[in-house]
Amino acid sequence: MFELRLVQGSLLKKVLEAIKDLVNDANFDCSATGFSLQAMDSSHVALVSLLLRSEGFEHYRCDRNLSMGMSLANMAKMLKCAGNDDIITIKADDGSDSVTFMFESPTQDKIADFEMKLMDIDSEHLGIPEAEYDAIVRMPSAEFARICKDLSTIGDTVVISVTKEGVKFSTRGDIGTANIVCRQNTSVDKPEEATIIEMQETVSLTFALRYMNSFAKATPLASQVTISLSSELPVVVEYKVAEMGYIRFYLAPKIEEEEAEGHVETVPQVETKSKAKKPKTEVKPITEVKPDADVKNEAKVEPEADSCMEPEVESKPQLEDVEPKKETNGKVEVMDVE
Amino acid sequence: MFELRLVQGSLLKKVLEAIKDLVNDANFDCSATGFSLQAMDSSHVALVSLLLRSEGFEHYRCDRNLSMGMSLANMAKMLKCAGNDDIITIKADDGSDSVTFMFESPTQDKIADFEMKLMDIDSEHLGIPEAEYDAIVRMPSAEFARICKDLSTIGDTVVISVTKEGVKFSTRGDIGTANIVCRQNTSVDKPEEATIIEMQETVSLTFALRYMNSFAKATPLASQVTISLSSELPVVVEYKVAEMGYIRFYLAPKIEEEEAEGHVETVPQVETKSKAKKPKTEVKPITEVKPDADVKNEAKVEPEADSCMEPEVESKPQLEDVEPKKETNGKVEVMDVE
Amino acid sequence: MFELRLVQGSLLKKVLEAIKDLVNDANFDCSATGFSLQAMDSSHVALVSLLLRSEGFEHYRCDRNLSMGMSLANMAKMLKCAGNDDIITIKADDGSDSVTFMFESPTQDKIADFEMKLMDIDSEHLGIPEAEYDAIVRMPSAEFARICKDLSTIGDTVVISVTKEGVKFSTRGDIGTANIVCRQNTSVDKPEEATIIEMQETVSLTFALRYMNSFAKATPLASQVTISLSSELPVVVEYKVAEMGYIRFYLAPKIEEEEAEGHVETVPQVETKSKAKKPKTEVKPITEVKPDADVKNEAKVEPEADSCMEPEVESKPQLEDVEPKKETNGKVEVMDVE
Repeated sequence: MFELRLVQGSLLKKVLEAIKDLVNDANFDCSATGFSLQAMDSSHVALVSLLLRSEGFEHYRCDRNLSMGMSLANMAKMLKCAGNDDIITIKADDGSDSVTFMFESPTQDKIADFEMKLMDIDSEHLGIPEAEYDAIVRMPSAEFARICKDLSTIGDTVVISVTKEGVKFSTRGDIGTANIVCRQNTSVDKPEEATIIEMQETVSLTFALRYMNSFAKATPLASQVTISLSSELPVVVEYKVAEMGYIRFYLAPKIEEEEAEGHVETVPQVETKSKAKKPKTEVKPITEVKPDADVKNEAKVEPEADSCMEPEVESKPQLEDVEPKKETNGKVEVMDVE
Repeated sequence: MFELRLVQGSLLKKVLEAIKDLVNDANFDCSATGFSLQAMDSSHVALVSLLLRSEGFEHYRCDRNLSMGMSLANMAKMLKCAGNDDIITIKADDGSDSVTFMFESPTQDKIADFEMKLMDIDSEHLGIPEAEYDAIVRMPSAEFARICKDLSTIGDTVVISVTKEGVKFSTRGDIGTANIVCRQNTSVDKPEEATIIEMQETVSLTFALRYMNSFAKATPLASQVTISLSSELPVVVEYKVAEMGYIRFYLAPKIEEEEAEGHVETVPQVETKSKAKKPKTEVKPITEVKPDADVKNEAKVEPEADSCMEPEVESKPQLEDVEPKKETNGKVEVMDVE
Repeated sequence: MFELRLVQGSLLKKVLEAIKDLVNDANFDCSATGFSLQAMDSSHVALVSLLLRSEGFEHYRCDRNLSMGMSLANMAKMLKCAGNDDIITIKADDGSDSVTFMFESPTQDKIADFEMKLMDIDSEHLGIPEAEYDAIVRMPSAEFARICKDLSTIGDTVVISVTKEGVKFSTRGDIGTANIVCRQNTSVDKPEEATIIEMQETVSLTFALRYMNSFAKATPLASQVTISLSSELPVVVEYKVAEMGYIRFYLAPKIEEEEAEGHVETVPQVETKSKAKKPKTEVKPITEVKPDADVKNEAKVEPEADSCMEPEVESKPQLEDVEPKKETNGKVEVMDVE
């Protein structure tokens, strides 16, 4: 028996809106710790990780660990039928092949229950190692969404460069170039308007704007977004889900081919004033770059068979009890590589 | 000479928006009683009946009964040119082949007149017999619209089941099932938020959601909708038009084929807790079921040549003076049956 | 070196939105007088003239006259990236092949710079002669936009007829006819709601609604629009840009063919109560009518090689220092006549 009850049901509606365009089908993992999901996007380039801690729910019961495969599009269709003020309950019996969503209006005058068939989805948990980041930018989420949208009208990629003074987003396209600088600003009236930069080293990395725009669909969830950057690692774009958890998006930076194989540079570097470290060809430890023409210079986030990827540990609660499937069957390949 | 003047012109705009997608062309009947319309939808499945009583207009003059054939799409185009606060006047000379719509702004600074050619539309009045209904549900119209829209994302038909406790809307589709229960609720602060059930017998009937969604386009007209159900009769979905009249939509329930001919049940029945009477194969007296594969099990609302269908009588005013065309030419077939 | 700074940057955003659909590419002319543009629409039927006077900018520096060819679509894309409260700076170095747009947020926390390549556009200034108009109508711009939009649902052309009492907009189409009269009204609470008519002679002219709807895209710029009409001249539809300038749209009236060559009248004249002068076949001095079937009876605004077209002179500042290209190379043909 699994049952959770969330009075602020609109949070769950927003979570689904945030990830349904990126991920088609995924397993929701239910454990004593909470309700979580980890999935690659359908093109196997970005990774989304969701955690809603059990303490955050008004009621949470999980008799034994459960993995429920769902079509996120269908789940989103059903959650759209919940009112914004509705209380949402999710229920599944052990061994059942379906899940029930219940929506109660605040006055209890309208009660809906939706039953959805579960799917059998073949996936495994990707260990996301704990990491130190060269630079962590916290800024208003609406500002970040606006910048990604604006730059998309000019170019396809964004160079994010961080210095102590601020963060610069740059792009280049057929019609010209664009640079947008957000200055560090901690002395604001409302904390949600602050832009705060924690930096060990300047960093300058290139990403596909298409994915950044996808991540920005989580904007309604949180007034602030946190962007963690290291030249060695995929960027992490994180939105808090109230006090109960987070959505994190991971995306490997684009690599300049000429460094790897002497190819023509296809990702134009916008000149930055920061002393950015040159991005290295191999981004480790959780990404493996394949200079493959088919994937258009997009570094895929992939598990490495020989790396000891530890699940990322939140200070509390621990994620240790997430099913360590990769150890039980000796496989770590999570997604198809076509 | 026919002339009506309506200070609250937005009512007429909303009436057209409510019916223009359902009905292409129709005759507006003008008499001393009022301004009315009765028409089948273009697929001859649903019936719409509009009455705006003469007393409801600021000015109403109708020297002799008049039937004006109009393209509702074109009429809606013209009414869209009226401002929401405009006073609307409709004028037609006896024997004229055109009608004039006049829009006056509240300040009288802007005056528009639109002239539209009338059409010759072959139709006859369908008598709608007075009836007793097993169950009458009155509920917020926005709630009803939302439910029909939500269920449409899951399935194609809705089962409406009424018990003393409430009304349940159910559907079933490829991705799962949905049940939405609205409880009777008479102790609300605002009367327009009440859900009131008058029930003689439990009833459970199946309808095409496509038509329900069409009917729900009348939602801006009234804060409440009244749904009258009997297993013997088409459902009536009624929206009041201020204090001056109504729009009523009629739709025959879908019939389960297996009862009629032992066919496989194509309309899944969602299990209900109410002791619903089994819908009978023949819905009488104003519908005639043709188990015709072409019409996809859709029971058509048709006049029966041998039935004495009386026009439905409102307590006041009487509808008796509606032109009794069917008696003058001896025909009662109202619509083509292809 | 050219540099202008506009604190109310949203004005520039609105200017681009007003003209980008009408004109694809155009030269912006920068001089000590101001920042201006004059261009034919892409079908060479309408003319747009923009002037933003140098005094209107917070900072304005123009070392020598400069003509910057820009794709208005691309410029609009970049200006869309400016926030509505942003301060906009436009910069170009002498001889540079690019222009820079800088957007500063009011708090200075976000600073964006966009660089756009300039284009080499072949065009010349069309002299617009100073003229006396038979009738000048000043009315709320939103009202004018609404009327043009409404009439477009009925017909393709509008007859604008002015008498002392008011201005009438009429059209005719397949579904009927429409007349909208706006009465002179000077005793309003808010000056922006006034409708003021200055009339020497009644006038009644026919125009393509397609262009009127294009012009109406400037509505967000000004609460009032001024329409100047003479049977001899193209109509001028003018929107003020704050206190600093204007956008003016010019469009030649449609001519009735039967008067010129005995052809069947293709532009139906809606009967008017005003004693309108018959429009003459030849509209002078800046238009030349070619009864050409290809252009569908659309009188093109064209410069005439033998006419001495003086640039229109605003009382202050003078536009004399606009580059007099047509005199230097002896050509006055401004656009291709296909």
